[in-house]
Amino acid sequence: MFPPIETSSEKPEKTAPPGDPRDQRVGIAIVGVGRISVNEVLPAFAHSKHCKPVVLVSGDRAKALKIAKQYDIPESAVLDYRDYDKLAQMPAVEGVYIALPNSMHAEYTIRAARAGKHVLCEKPMANTVAECEQMIDACRQAGRKLMIAYRRQYSPLDRALLKMIREGRFGPLREFISVNSQNMGDPQHWRLKRALAGGGALPDVGLYCINEARFLSGEEPVDVIGNTWSTPGDARFEEVEEHCQFILRFPSGFTASCSTGYSSHKSQMFRLNADTAWAEMSPAYAYEGNKLRISRQVEGKEHTAELQIEEGNQFARELDHFAQCVRKNQEPHTPGEEGLQDQRVIEAIYASARSGKSVKLSPPSGKTRGPEPESESTGNLAGP
Amino acid sequence: MFPPIETSSEKPEKTAPPGDPRDQRVGIAIVGVGRISVNEVLPAFAHSKHCKPVVLVSGDRAKALKIAKQYDIPESAVLDYRDYDKLAQMPAVEGVYIALPNSMHAEYTIRAARAGKHVLCEKPMANTVAECEQMIDACRQAGRKLMIAYRRQYSPLDRALLKMIREGRFGPLREFISVNSQNMGDPQHWRLKRALAGGGALPDVGLYCINEARFLSGEEPVDVIGNTWSTPGDARFEEVEEHCQFILRFPSGFTASCSTGYSSHKSQMFRLNADTAWAEMSPAYAYEGNKLRISRQVEGKEHTAELQIEEGNQFARELDHFAQCVRKNQEPHTPGEEGLQDQRVIEAIYASARSGKSVKLSPPSGKTRGPEPESESTGNLAGP
Amino acid sequence: MFPPIETSSEKPEKTAPPGDPRDQRVGIAIVGVGRISVNEVLPAFAHSKHCKPVVLVSGDRAKALKIAKQYDIPESAVLDYRDYDKLAQMPAVEGVYIALPNSMHAEYTIRAARAGKHVLCEKPMANTVAECEQMIDACRQAGRKLMIAYRRQYSPLDRALLKMIREGRFGPLREFISVNSQNMGDPQHWRLKRALAGGGALPDVGLYCINEARFLSGEEPVDVIGNTWSTPGDARFEEVEEHCQFILRFPSGFTASCSTGYSSHKSQMFRLNADTAWAEMSPAYAYEGNKLRISRQVEGKEHTAELQIEEGNQFARELDHFAQCVRKNQEPHTPGEEGLQDQRVIEAIYASARSGKSVKLSPPSGKTRGPEPESESTGNLAGP
Amino acid sequence: MFPPIETSSEKPEKTAPPGDPRDQRVGIAIVGVGRISVNEVLPAFAHSKHCKPVVLVSGDRAKALKIAKQYDIPESAVLDYRDYDKLAQMPAVEGVYIALPNSMHAEYTIRAARAGKHVLCEKPMANTVAECEQMIDACRQAGRKLMIAYRRQYSPLDRALLKMIREGRFGPLREFISVNSQNMGDPQHWRLKRALAGGGALPDVGLYCINEARFLSGEEPVDVIGNTWSTPGDARFEEVEEHCQFILRFPSGFTASCSTGYSSHKSQMFRLNADTAWAEMSPAYAYEGNKLRISRQVEGKEHTAELQIEEGNQFARELDHFAQCVRKNQEPHTPGEEGLQDQRVIEAIYASARSGKSVKLSPPSGKTRGPEPESESTGNLAGP
Repeated sequence: MFPPIETSSEKPEKTAPPGDPRDQRVGIAIVGVGRISVNEVLPAFAHSKHCKPVVLVSGDRAKALKIAKQYDIPESAVLDYRDYDKLAQMPAVEGVYIALPNSMHAEYTIRAARAGKHVLCEKPMANTVAECEQMIDACRQAGRKLMIAYRRQYSPLDRALLKMIREGRFGPLREFISVNSQNMGDPQHWRLKRALAGGGALPDVGLYCINEARFLSGEEPVDVIGNTWSTPGDARFEEVEEHCQFILRFPSGFTASCSTGYSSHKSQMFRLNADTAWAEMSPAYAYEGNKLRISRQVEGKEHTAELQIEEGNQFARELDHFAQCVRKNQEPHTPGEEGLQDQRVIEAIYASARSGKSVKLSPPSGKTRGPEPESESTGNLAGP
Repeated sequence: MFPPIETSSEKPEKTAPPGDPRDQRVGIAIVGVGRISVNEVLPAFAHSKHCKPVVLVSGDRAKALKIAKQYDIPESAVLDYRDYDKLAQMPAVEGVYIALPNSMHAEYTIRAARAGKHVLCEKPMANTVAECEQMIDACRQAGRKLMIAYRRQYSPLDRALLKMIREGRFGPLREFISVNSQNMGDPQHWRLKRALAGGGALPDVGLYCINEARFLSGEEPVDVIGNTWSTPGDARFEEVEEHCQFILRFPSGFTASCSTGYSSHKSQMFRLNADTAWAEMSPAYAYEGNKLRISRQVEGKEHTAELQIEEGNQFARELDHFAQCVRKNQEPHTPGEEGLQDQRVIEAIYASARSGKSVKLSPPSGKTRGPEPESESTGNLAGP
Repeated sequence: MFPPIETSSEKPEKTAPPGDPRDQRVGIAIVGVGRISVNEVLPAFAHSKHCKPVVLVSGDRAKALKIAKQYDIPESAVLDYRDYDKLAQMPAVEGVYIALPNSMHAEYTIRAARAGKHVLCEKPMANTVAECEQMIDACRQAGRKLMIAYRRQYSPLDRALLKMIREGRFGPLREFISVNSQNMGDPQHWRLKRALAGGGALPDVGLYCINEARFLSGEEPVDVIGNTWSTPGDARFEEVEEHCQFILRFPSGFTASCSTGYSSHKSQMFRLNADTAWAEMSPAYAYEGNKLRISRQVEGKEHTAELQIEEGNQFARELDHFAQCVRKNQEPHTPGEEGLQDQRVIEAIYASARSGKSVKLSPPSGKTRGPEPESESTGNLAGP
Repeated sequence: MFPPIETSSEKPEKTAPPGDPRDQRVGIAIVGVGRISVNEVLPAFAHSKHCKPVVLVSGDRAKALKIAKQYDIPESAVLDYRDYDKLAQMPAVEGVYIALPNSMHAEYTIRAARAGKHVLCEKPMANTVAECEQMIDACRQAGRKLMIAYRRQYSPLDRALLKMIREGRFGPLREFISVNSQNMGDPQHWRLKRALAGGGALPDVGLYCINEARFLSGEEPVDVIGNTWSTPGDARFEEVEEHCQFILRFPSGFTASCSTGYSSHKSQMFRLNADTAWAEMSPAYAYEGNKLRISRQVEGKEHTAELQIEEGNQFARELDHFAQCVRKNQEPHTPGEEGLQDQRVIEAIYASARSGKSVKLSPPSGKTRGPEPESESTGNLAGP
């Protein structure tokens, strides 16, 4: 749109191509109006090119009405969970975004698929492998897309790192170490209830470490070791683990060593050691502010370079990828199979922690990822 | 809205209070649809609580119509410059945002005021002190607000630093050094034409250094030394200076030494030396990614701390402050007088560079800043 | 010696107190003239206050003579290993510094003790728990000091962190993650031969992670999980492990997750997660350039502070602590018992890796550390 | 000496070549036993390959005797200033290192030359241009070397940056900004007495900024602007300036903007802006811990790389360069002419500050630098 204002040695300008007119966008029903919906996903629509929010589903009608007003969603489009199946009669809704407690992911995904809607489901996909499989089956039978919201796989930072790995810039990968921890407060929060959350730190924040190691290496773990701990008497951890450490061994010998906790000051990073370089993301996994550094010898000196890569809005990227899959009828890059595989790893970690023995893991039954996201979808740096 | 999920030692949650319903927002006409409007200001409305874009004024109707569509602005609200005075008949427009070449700021501000509109004008305010004074007069006579878009004065990073300075945490300020440079390309760009831009690097990017030194110290310069340079034969700098260095001396002895250029790789930082600490912003003045570090002795060891303070969208903050001034009928924090004073400094720098002598500067005739922005207006971190 | 030149808000001056006159220093025989002796320990004597090198023991007389000349060591004080027991007749030698391949540590320590010499032995202490116990016994029976060269326990960086932990500044410790890896070349190097090295990455560089976790927490592991890997066909790893991951669980629930490798680009760091803060050393474990950062909430903002603490020469600190223990007849801070305990952990890790099961570890039979090093010994920042 | 232990992608090992046997080293008389001698220079001899300290000259015999003992300097080699000319009768002394108050540099340099000694003189070279010229003349007439102790010109960090500049990696240089400030305490210190110090912050710490800009650009300033300030009533600054800002313009248009102060918390950095990159040293000018970062576009992304380059002991490098010039009878890289030129710049800055006008500076009458230091002399990273 504009000719370059600066010389060619400067950062290319990022004038975003225009988003779709509103009447051509994929309409999304937001299912669950909690923190992630209010603080992250609803604001992200302002950065989306292909989506618009059209329905809110919530058990707290007063709150939902207030929020609906902010987003020009009419009162008639604010539904209670009892009305969920009415989505089938709302053609403006093409997809649903599931942001409910983990234990409800399976039911509300399956019902959405049966109502003819495509599904973008938050991670973790569900609480059990069995639930994951049911979700995949339901969407397949309904001919609807199922995408799990692994936002890091769409981030330009992670994709830039993946590209360098694939080009062999660092040689073979050897070791991945990562921590993702935060410090929980209220013991009554649903994330600390086993029936709702399925576990503690592991499925919530530890999941990022698992997924990142699998994503960057392109391999699947064959051997899993796990350890869990809850401090006796800490009311927060009567039902779920306080922290969890695990080692994943992949076929090439690449190994991931991770620690995830619910009682530590927020701490998020990974380091990836390869033959001729290391890469570090610190912070990692965050909604914003993630930083990538790469260290290697250049002309006989160690260079540790920070790469300035704008992530833009991670949630908008996800939404836009989902919308493109709907419009172009293609498999999401992170389909249900990707979530299922992480759930298989989680169950193996818990099994190992219970038995004190390492656990073998068979490969997934097929590919867990669809086609790469279009680079266009990673270009929405500057807004609509 | 949500009870805290994490312990009290963790970062407080930032669930943004809801923005105003659209029908209560201040309607803004965007005057000039160039880079800053398209890439920064129009997207920023998604983060604004109190504003909405309602009119586009552009000389390129085709481009403007395309953009209008993105923002649900009807075709009838896309004006040509010839129709500018019709704004007087458009009650939906309460304020204008002036994003034109510098030489047009005065005319379009004055005409807006006469049309009964409040004005938010980009920096630099104008090309001459005389123009600045006319703009102030016109708005005063029309009883309209005039605010200059000094976004750094609204950023939580700069305000946190200012707060620490005012609390005496660092002792008296001594030295400020700063650079703000970038590398221009096309010699035909209006920023390289004296008649349009008023100067080269100094009024465009060097202005940030002047304003930051004044803002952080709360003082006004009394003595100005300047130096300018243009490489002979470089087509970009036939009309305006390539780079400029200047020293500003303030009454307390605090001194700012700055360098600003149009032929260097993008480089933006300042360091502020005080009696017992230094503070550094690097990058500084950027649309995003600015980082603040403070270094001082703590328990006998030098601690260099980076403060993680989310800036959010700087343009949305400005817009919201402007809207609040309109709604509450109060003086903007950065009114025309603030822009006028910077223009006086710029003229003194140029005068010194021409004469090779230091130039005395009398104090401004009155206060240059209105009341502090409400902290509420600096809380829009997470979106609408 | 000098009155302060700067104000009290500045870094205190570090004019080192003078070292002992040479004739009062503890004379050291350097046993083994390989990399660590030539590149690190011999130059470190220039920074030592209490030691001097008086004898070299080497199998390569030509090389040793050349080096002796640099350090004013007479030809008569260059011994072959066959002459090792002649140390008993050399009263100028009060202590020996053992810098031999790991498998020789036990023999040369025991023979030194029998010759009446105090022993400062490089890490790892030995290749087996049995050897460690024999070394301790031999020194005890001979009434000689035995110190293991755990240089990190004497570094002002690590000790500053330990002090903050003990003062409760971060609340309870939760998780420690660490990596210490490097990329080996020549497959014939003794470090890649099991008989000489006792193992691969684990006893050489992984040992730092074990020791740091024990040192910082003040706890001893009760549960150990290990994993090892060697890439088939890589000539470097036919005898020893290529990389190793392990999880150590301590009684309080504190857990260390570590990865150590011999086929990765040099990568050294740890992060310690506690209740209200995290601390990170990156690089860690290095001879110089280690950096400590601590992150926590201060007045509602996350502050990530880098602490500038000069480490000075780590080898000089060790030597001086050793000399003081000799002169004052006190137990070293890191005696043989400290090395023995690490060896017990190493054997447990290997046992777990072989069996695929977690391994319980009983507590050490007594204290593993002597009195804290005097702060005087951590003040030798500026040289002799 | 040792075959490489790590793969070729790792940092090359730095086993230092052995230093000269003591009887072949250049014997140095240390003239002045103040801070820099005791804390920096005397300890640095341990890292020198070619020098040894053989005489101390001091007005405080008790202190000097204590220090002499540390360095095996016999009592007979501890001289009073009254005995200075006896150096002529001491053939073991080949060179002197002048570490006296600035006002004494000229006299003691000239007397040393007349006594037949080579001279390594601390910066600033002297208090006036006239003194500098007398020093150069005296050494020339005596056929002795005169070297000024500009340690940064021998540092591998600065030389690596210079090499990249010369190779054109960043394109033409445009702007240099720098600060070098510290916070003085005792008003009675000689550095705050005009007769002894010649000035305040400028000749002491500001000098580094001048020299660095000249060194990196390879140009000489043609136009100088200066500003000085002393806070009325501050007892420290009754005789000398508190802080000083200056702008140096070089023939190509390259410009240095610097600020130096004696009342700010220690703050040391420079940034160099060039056409396609910027380089920053922060901290800069320090005895240790200087860090070099370079930022530029690589494959469309901004990479900000920190280069890990070990500086080793800066004082040992200087001493060894000096010794090599003596042994090989060659001009030092930073001879008297280099110090003279900086003094000319200092006088121009002061003249400009007094007059409020820019001051023209003619080029130096000839080359100010001798041959580049041998790279061998920059390899003494690990000790003797």
